Amino acid sequence: MRLLVINPNTTELMRQQIDEGARKYASPGTEIVTLCAASGPRSIEGEYDVALSAVGTLQTLVANEKDYDGFVVACGQDPGLYACREVTTKPVVGIGEASMYMACLLGHRFTSMTALWRMVPLMVTMVRRYGLTDRCASVRAAGVKVIDIAADRGRTVEAFIKEARVAIDKDGADVICLSGAAMVGMDKIMEKELGVPVTDGVVSAVKLVEAQVAYGLHTSKKNTFAFPERKDAVNVGEVLRSVYE
Amino acid sequence: MRLLVINPNTTELMRQQIDEGARKYASPGTEIVTLCAASGPRSIEGEYDVALSAVGTLQTLVANEKDYDGFVVACGQDPGLYACREVTTKPVVGIGEASMYMACLLGHRFTSMTALWRMVPLMVTMVRRYGLTDRCASVRAAGVKVIDIAADRGRTVEAFIKEARVAIDKDGADVICLSGAAMVGMDKIMEKELGVPVTDGVVSAVKLVEAQVAYGLHTSKKNTFAFPERKDAVNVGEVLRSVYE
Amino acid sequence: MRLLVINPNTTELMRQQIDEGARKYASPGTEIVTLCAASGPRSIEGEYDVALSAVGTLQTLVANEKDYDGFVVACGQDPGLYACREVTTKPVVGIGEASMYMACLLGHRFTSMTALWRMVPLMVTMVRRYGLTDRCASVRAAGVKVIDIAADRGRTVEAFIKEARVAIDKDGADVICLSGAAMVGMDKIMEKELGVPVTDGVVSAVKLVEAQVAYGLHTSKKNTFAFPERKDAVNVGEVLRSVYE
Amino acid sequence: MRLLVINPNTTELMRQQIDEGARKYASPGTEIVTLCAASGPRSIEGEYDVALSAVGTLQTLVANEKDYDGFVVACGQDPGLYACREVTTKPVVGIGEASMYMACLLGHRFTSMTALWRMVPLMVTMVRRYGLTDRCASVRAAGVKVIDIAADRGRTVEAFIKEARVAIDKDGADVICLSGAAMVGMDKIMEKELGVPVTDGVVSAVKLVEAQVAYGLHTSKKNTFAFPERKDAVNVGEVLRSVYE
Amino acid sequence: MRLLVINPNTTELMRQQIDEGARKYASPGTEIVTLCAASGPRSIEGEYDVALSAVGTLQTLVANEKDYDGFVVACGQDPGLYACREVTTKPVVGIGEASMYMACLLGHRFTSMTALWRMVPLMVTMVRRYGLTDRCASVRAAGVKVIDIAADRGRTVEAFIKEARVAIDKDGADVICLSGAAMVGMDKIMEKELGVPVTDGVVSAVKLVEAQVAYGLHTSKKNTFAFPERKDAVNVGEVLRSVYE
Amino acid sequence: MRLLVINPNTTELMRQQIDEGARKYASPGTEIVTLCAASGPRSIEGEYDVALSAVGTLQTLVANEKDYDGFVVACGQDPGLYACREVTTKPVVGIGEASMYMACLLGHRFTSMTALWRMVPLMVTMVRRYGLTDRCASVRAAGVKVIDIAADRGRTVEAFIKEARVAIDKDGADVICLSGAAMVGMDKIMEKELGVPVTDGVVSAVKLVEAQVAYGLHTSKKNTFAFPERKDAVNVGEVLRSVYE
Repeated sequence: MRLLVINPNTTELMRQQIDEGARKYASPGTEIVTLCAASGPRSIEGEYDVALSAVGTLQTLVANEKDYDGFVVACGQDPGLYACREVTTKPVVGIGEASMYMACLLGHRFTSMTALWRMVPLMVTMVRRYGLTDRCASVRAAGVKVIDIAADRGRTVEAFIKEARVAIDKDGADVICLSGAAMVGMDKIMEKELGVPVTDGVVSAVKLVEAQVAYGLHTSKKNTFAFPERKDAVNVGEVLRSVYE
Repeated sequence: MRLLVINPNTTELMRQQIDEGARKYASPGTEIVTLCAASGPRSIEGEYDVALSAVGTLQTLVANEKDYDGFVVACGQDPGLYACREVTTKPVVGIGEASMYMACLLGHRFTSMTALWRMVPLMVTMVRRYGLTDRCASVRAAGVKVIDIAADRGRTVEAFIKEARVAIDKDGADVICLSGAAMVGMDKIMEKELGVPVTDGVVSAVKLVEAQVAYGLHTSKKNTFAFPERKDAVNVGEVLRSVYE
Repeated sequence: MRLLVINPNTTELMRQQIDEGARKYASPGTEIVTLCAASGPRSIEGEYDVALSAVGTLQTLVANEKDYDGFVVACGQDPGLYACREVTTKPVVGIGEASMYMACLLGHRFTSMTALWRMVPLMVTMVRRYGLTDRCASVRAAGVKVIDIAADRGRTVEAFIKEARVAIDKDGADVICLSGAAMVGMDKIMEKELGVPVTDGVVSAVKLVEAQVAYGLHTSKKNTFAFPERKDAVNVGEVLRSVYE
Repeated sequence: MRLLVINPNTTELMRQQIDEGARKYASPGTEIVTLCAASGPRSIEGEYDVALSAVGTLQTLVANEKDYDGFVVACGQDPGLYACREVTTKPVVGIGEASMYMACLLGHRFTSMTALWRMVPLMVTMVRRYGLTDRCASVRAAGVKVIDIAADRGRTVEAFIKEARVAIDKDGADVICLSGAAMVGMDKIMEKELGVPVTDGVVSAVKLVEAQVAYGLHTSKKNTFAFPERKDAVNVGEVLRSVYE
Repeated sequence: MRLLVINPNTTELMRQQIDEGARKYASPGTEIVTLCAASGPRSIEGEYDVALSAVGTLQTLVANEKDYDGFVVACGQDPGLYACREVTTKPVVGIGEASMYMACLLGHRFTSMTALWRMVPLMVTMVRRYGLTDRCASVRAAGVKVIDIAADRGRTVEAFIKEARVAIDKDGADVICLSGAAMVGMDKIMEKELGVPVTDGVVSAVKLVEAQVAYGLHTSKKNTFAFPERKDAVNVGEVLRSVYE
Repeated sequence: MRLLVINPNTTELMRQQIDEGARKYASPGTEIVTLCAASGPRSIEGEYDVALSAVGTLQTLVANEKDYDGFVVACGQDPGLYACREVTTKPVVGIGEASMYMACLLGHRFTSMTALWRMVPLMVTMVRRYGLTDRCASVRAAGVKVIDIAADRGRTVEAFIKEARVAIDKDGADVICLSGAAMVGMDKIMEKELGVPVTDGVVSAVKLVEAQVAYGLHTSKKNTFAFPERKDAVNVGEVLRSVYE
């Protein structure tokens, strides 16, 4: 099977890290291609970033839809995820949701970890949209910018471990979710230090899409994720406009 | 005071209707300008449409931010609303939320009405994000496309009245919210037929922004709606990129 | 338009302060009259106080209903608010709810501030009744009696600022709500110190009633707030009894 | 032990029916006195009625507080219940809550039944305040005025049975709660017809107060139900004012 | 009336303590028999313990069902409670739920106390199943093993009092619930120290079953707690199997 | 990898059907063994059945824990699932939860389908425990006994399709979950008829355990699912008792 992993953060360094993480636990028959989104900010740390990267993610998905069996949106805020599901019948999984659903099978409550504290309200809203509020012990941040995490993961892993300990001891978390793409590859280091399972979003999403493709499942086209209605659009570029035809 | 009303639906006919509705109950000293969003689909009826129109709405707001005292996002799904709040200290109100907050002062439970049934899940999620689930008797649709509503409001008003009666009699709604921009101007006709208050989103938003500007209130820049972090971005156009500088 | 502001706290000093606050940001054409409730405790700091002041508020509203276009219940616990809505078709807004709905347009989460810690459970229940629990970062008290706040606002403002800082830094509040009438006039002082919007209940309520009257909206008379049924009543006084006739 | 049952509905016929119901399953050592509230409407069917009867109920409780071991507020909307708890250390139980807590021990979900449909929103809010929303299959009304139920229970019992069947078959209710005082005495007739437990509020409240008094339990005076603060009050009558001294 | 109290913890010392507690506030005509469950662990401190003791509790209830008027499951996690309700029409009350419902009549929010911190997630889930999440200020543990509490209650009471003070002062609890059987007899000592009501689960359950039996109430046999379907079973023993015949 | 699938229903016919379903979409390197639980009822259709089968499931898991890499509990009510997680560090997935988490990736709202209507309250409680209430459009039953489904799936599939149509059209479900083991093998037939994804619990659980084992994830041993405390137990059999040593 062929999977397309989209990096909404648009930085080449993160694309490489995501690609490496995505391949690490992939099944033998899975072919993985990782692309930067066609447009968007270099990192995603707030509502404005999410809005811009959603469109870049959609461009890349629409342009490549025919050539893959499933898709991963590799940013912890799952930008454009629900819109992506409208434009394809193939499985699309976000790494934010994937890290959390995987955690739900390993413990009763998880803590979702992100880069900056300013992203917490956005993440809390996302957890609620997914219906997982009662399973979420807390959302915590390491207090490091996304780009700094990607650039020096050796040093920032300490910040994540420190905050994860608070999550386990004070918030009662059973599992730690690394929702962001910048944290890819930290999972097993943290697991060893913390003694609890750590679910990386990229790996979790790849495994979940593989499971869906292997099982022959498709995105529902009735009710919530029906195809977009036919209509015209202005100044959105040919790729995005083609969806409406 | 000068208010900018942005029409994310990008059709000139709707822009005129919105403009007319926005002026109808505006205070004497309020100057209103209504612009179509810089890009986006002709109508907004699902997650894909919302994602695209969010960016178009942001473009128009960013390009005009300095020249106005407050902003209205004139689409019932409030596309890009939370991202808009990140890029300005001035008040920004969505017509979806406005129709509901206004209703909360006139009854205990409201029904939010939209164009197509496929939009209901998206609206239910939006109501939950605003925290108003317990105040929402139901979300109902008239079963008419947005563009058809705008083109022939005389005929479609009947479809809305019929569904609103079910909301009042069966769901127990005290108030009807016309969340969509296409329904602007139907409020008083429906009120007369139904005998309950009907809150139009465009009018409600204008009145709420006026109230905030008059009171000297600003969008909070701490926590959830802090300005976007400085960073680079690719292929997003000059206007959107300027926010990161 | 003529608005009646009712002071359920029944102290003349607070009536004057409320009246001053209510006029400060009122629109040019708005005439404001502020009256003490016909009966009730001197301050409202618990369930017993609320029950007594609810009836005093109703007496004053019923006695003056014909002469005004809209009403403000100027006590942060909104005593008798839902009963008031049953007896009139005109808009009635409580300052507790007004401070919170206004805050919902400026940030994602607010902290509602009150006088004494003992009032917090009552306020939490009120927030839930309004459906705003998910938007409420916390309810906090300054630990000062209502009458002491009214008598010496210069000194008590410090206590509110201190607690508001905790709300912003620890609870993640984007906006501070001054729900109580005794805090009227503290808003801009606190805003300057805290750097976040502060919504005063009295001002917010006046602006919201103005918006409703200008838009021609009425309290719903179907379902929740239908007029009281015809019946007899004993020992309730002529004014209250007249409602049943 | 001596229990005071207060009839907020203030009609002598209902006082007699409540008194009879309260004695029916009382323990041998329990002495019951039933009094009409000192003031209030003849029946309670909305927010306005509840606000007025709350004060009448408080008057009667305060005037008799010293002479009894526990109190029942015998109206299904529990008027003034939380305020009553502030003014005494003795147990106070409302018949609305009692019918529901008792039902929680006999099934997983109950339907609460009331007189008029217009009372449903108020009851739903009450169920939420008690935290029992997830246990509540529905709130349903028989569509009969309170006074008509009291006057001719033989005939109105049919209306309740009909609606209860819908609750059981369609809403999935395990238990039926007769929350209103007017329905006292219908429980066993309905149980026989319906084949599910029916919890009458008056009987349930008497049994629960008996249990609390026998166990030596008191209303908490810390946090939510602390005694009212000392203060002055105007035009509230000597009895109510005495609480503040 | 004859009540059977079942001790799922299966230790004789706890059986004696429970028996003593159950008799202490029982009504004159109530005959109480306390039995250890037919099988199960010596103490119940997690999900595995609950699963095993549920079956032991069922064995004892089924074997004795005909000889009693009502049943108490005397373990704070209410093991097998909902299954017990399926196999009898007589009232069955768990001490976990009993301590909480009784508390709901004495304050607005309670803290439920248990032995070990590891039991907290299980208790939080139980509180949610009962629908009481909004009434629960917190679940707290004394950090002592169940068997150690039973063996030396004099010493462990201090640990409970210390944690209860945090519940009252920090979490805002009005009432303390002693949900576990090992804490039986500590209630009045703690009440004296803390100044708030303390509801012991065993006493509360006995009083609630007495109330239900006196009122002639039965467990509902429609919907949730219908009798088990007829079927075969393997290796479950004669007593448990007899239910299916 | 070696996976053990446990059939809590204890019937050989269902064991064979489950085994066949589990193998159908399993990865090439996955070895699957399916065993009946050591004890329990022939089918699971209520709280009593769940309690008994939980212990049988635990017996089989404990006796075989060392020989497998992961476990599936193949009954839609997930009997003993949380207890199973306490006794092993290896992944354990229930088919009830698996069908729902898989559905969460394909649509926004799912309907969970079960055998008998009497199982609905139990399933609703389970959905709430998993935190998925907001994602659940409804729980519906086909009105057929578990054993009859297993014996004649050709005929019963019609009953499921009919009810699923109501779920899609009236409840707004995007995806149908076949939570029960008896329905294994119906998924693709139903998918073809309904035009929406249908997630079978057995297949979903196998794919999810495979994903977890491949990724090297373990059940958390901190907080909720810590190993059972050391203690004694009576009459529970050697296998179950060995856990406590």
